[in-house]
Amino acid sequence: MSQTLTLEEIYAPIEKPLQQVPDAILKILSTPNDLASDVIRYFFSGKGKLLRPALTLLGAALKQPRLVESQNAALIRLASSYEIFHAATLIHDDIIDSAYLRRNLPTVNVKWGAQTAVLVGDYLHDRALDVIHTEGSREVFSLFLKTAAEVCDGEIHELSQKQNFNLTEEDYFEIVRKKTAVLLACALESGARFAGAEDQEAAALYRYGHYFGMAFQIVDDCLDFTGNEHEFGKTLGADLEAGVLTLPLIRLLEISSESERKDIVGLFQAGGEASRLRSLLDKIREAKTIEYAFGKARELNAQARRELESFPASPVKQSLDKLLDYVLERNK
Amino acid sequence: MSQTLTLEEIYAPIEKPLQQVPDAILKILSTPNDLASDVIRYFFSGKGKLLRPALTLLGAALKQPRLVESQNAALIRLASSYEIFHAATLIHDDIIDSAYLRRNLPTVNVKWGAQTAVLVGDYLHDRALDVIHTEGSREVFSLFLKTAAEVCDGEIHELSQKQNFNLTEEDYFEIVRKKTAVLLACALESGARFAGAEDQEAAALYRYGHYFGMAFQIVDDCLDFTGNEHEFGKTLGADLEAGVLTLPLIRLLEISSESERKDIVGLFQAGGEASRLRSLLDKIREAKTIEYAFGKARELNAQARRELESFPASPVKQSLDKLLDYVLERNK
Repeated sequence: MSQTLTLEEIYAPIEKPLQQVPDAILKILSTPNDLASDVIRYFFSGKGKLLRPALTLLGAALKQPRLVESQNAALIRLASSYEIFHAATLIHDDIIDSAYLRRNLPTVNVKWGAQTAVLVGDYLHDRALDVIHTEGSREVFSLFLKTAAEVCDGEIHELSQKQNFNLTEEDYFEIVRKKTAVLLACALESGARFAGAEDQEAAALYRYGHYFGMAFQIVDDCLDFTGNEHEFGKTLGADLEAGVLTLPLIRLLEISSESERKDIVGLFQAGGEASRLRSLLDKIREAKTIEYAFGKARELNAQARRELESFPASPVKQSLDKLLDYVLERNK
Repeated sequence: MSQTLTLEEIYAPIEKPLQQVPDAILKILSTPNDLASDVIRYFFSGKGKLLRPALTLLGAALKQPRLVESQNAALIRLASSYEIFHAATLIHDDIIDSAYLRRNLPTVNVKWGAQTAVLVGDYLHDRALDVIHTEGSREVFSLFLKTAAEVCDGEIHELSQKQNFNLTEEDYFEIVRKKTAVLLACALESGARFAGAEDQEAAALYRYGHYFGMAFQIVDDCLDFTGNEHEFGKTLGADLEAGVLTLPLIRLLEISSESERKDIVGLFQAGGEASRLRSLLDKIREAKTIEYAFGKARELNAQARRELESFPASPVKQSLDKLLDYVLERNK
C-alpha cells in the first residue's frame, strides 16, 4: 500500500496560489461594515483545510499547469469563492443549539447571535455568487447555481430527517451527496473548465469529486464518534446531540433486533448526554459499524480513483490520487 | 388633490398576469421535500401586496403593453422571482425574538424554528437567483446581484445600529435605501429592460423606484407606531421592541434637549413593554415627528413623480403615478 501523505505534501503542486487564497477571501469579503468585518475576520482566523479552493486549483493545474504557476488572479478568486460559499453554509448550519465549536472557535451563532449569523452567511453566499458570475463562464456559473440548490436541498432534507430512526442508507447517501459531495465536485470541475477542459474531462473530474466527497463526509461523520474534541475542532457527538443520524448508527439500527432498536432509540430520547453518548459508542464499537462505514468510504474511493485513469501521469494527478488515501487516514 | 385609488385599481393594467404570480411562485418553488413544501405553502398563504412583481409587470407594460396582454410566461416568472427573493429576506429577518407575526400569521421562525427558517430562506433566495439568471438578460441579472448585495448590506447595517441612539437621519436613509428601495427599483427596471427599455428609460424608472421605495419604507416605519396590529399584520411596536430606531424616533431624539434624550433612552432600557411603548408614543405625538416623517415621504414622492414626466401618457403611467398617492394613504 502506498504511503499516506500530509495535506501539505498533497497540496505541493498548487502551494503558491493556495497560499494566496486566505488573503483573496478577505479581499473579496471586505466591507465598510464593522460588524460584518469583525465576524468575517473571526471566522476565517480558524484555519480550515481549504479543500474546495485546493480542488479548483488542482483541477486547473491538471489541465493547464501554467495557469497555476503564473498565479492567475481570476483563478485564485474563483477558487476562493467556493470556500466562501462553504463558509456561508457552515455559518448557517451552526444556527442550531448544539453547535458550540467550529474549527476550535465558538460559532458565530454563539458569539454574535442567530440574526448576525443569518445575515453574514447571506452576505458570504452572495459574494461567492458574484465572483463566480464574474470570473466563471456561463457553464461554470450554471453548475454553481445547480450545486447551491442541491446543497440547500440536502440540508433541508437532513433537517427534516432528524430523529428519524428509520432513515435508510440510501436516504443518508442522498443527503451526503447533496450536502457535501456536489460542492467538492463543482469546485474541481470548475477549476478544470476555467483551464479549458473538454466536457468529457470535466465530467470525469466531477465524478471523481462526487465519490471523493461522499467518502470524505462518511469519514467526517465517523469522526463525530471517534475523534478527539480538540483535534477534530467541533463538538464531539454534535450530530448525535442534534438528532442527526449518520452511517455508523443507521447501520447499527439496521442490524439490530427489534428490542435492541428500542434500546437504542430509548438512549436518544433519554436525557443525560455524556452517559448516553458513551452507551451508544459502546454499541457501535461492538457492532463494528464504524468499520462498516469506512468500508463504504473505501469503495467510493476506489470509484474515484478509476475516474483518474484517463488522465496522463503528472504531479497534479498524483495529488488527486493521494488525496483519496488522506481521506481514509485523517483524524481531523 | 387627486383621488386615491385602491391597490386593486392601480394594478388594473396588469391584473391578469399579476393574478398568475401566486401560482407561478409555487411552481418555481415546488420541491419533493415535504418540510420545505409545508413552509412555502404556509408562508405564501398570507397574502402580500405583491408590490415587487407588480412593479416588474408595470415596468414591462409601460414599454411594451403586448407583453403583458399576452401574459408572457417568462415575464411572469421573472416578476415572481422578485417576490420570492423578498420573501427570503422576510423569513430571514423574522429570525429575531420579537417578530411573532408576519401578514397576520406566526412567523416561520416561531412555527418551525430558526434552522428551518434559515434553510428555507436560503432555498427561496437561490430559486429566485436561478430564475432571474434564466429569464433575465446579463444586465438584469447583474443588477439583481448588485441589489441582493445591497439588501444584505443594509440589513447588516441596520442590525449593527440597533440601540444606537445617535443614529442620524442620513444613516437611517442609507439603511432604508439598501434594505427596501433598491429591490423595488430593481424589480421595476428589470421589467422595463425585459420589454426592451433603453438605458435612459431604465435609469429613470430605477430612480422612480428608489424614491418610491424610500417613501414606502418611511411610511411603513411610521405604521409601526400608528397602525392597528390586526390591520398592519405585523407586531405593533416590533421595531421598537427589537431596538431598531426609525425616523419618528430619530427625529424626536434630534430635537430633544439633553435631559429629554436621557428620558427617552431610559424608556428603551427599562422593562415594562406596553407602558414604555405608550410613553414613547405620547412623546412622538406631542413632537409631531410622525408628521415630519410623512413630510419626508411626500418630498420623495414628488421626486419619484418627476421621473415619470418623460414617459408618454398611458394607463400604466397613471398606475405608477397613483401608486405614489397610495403610499401616503395606506394604513396597512
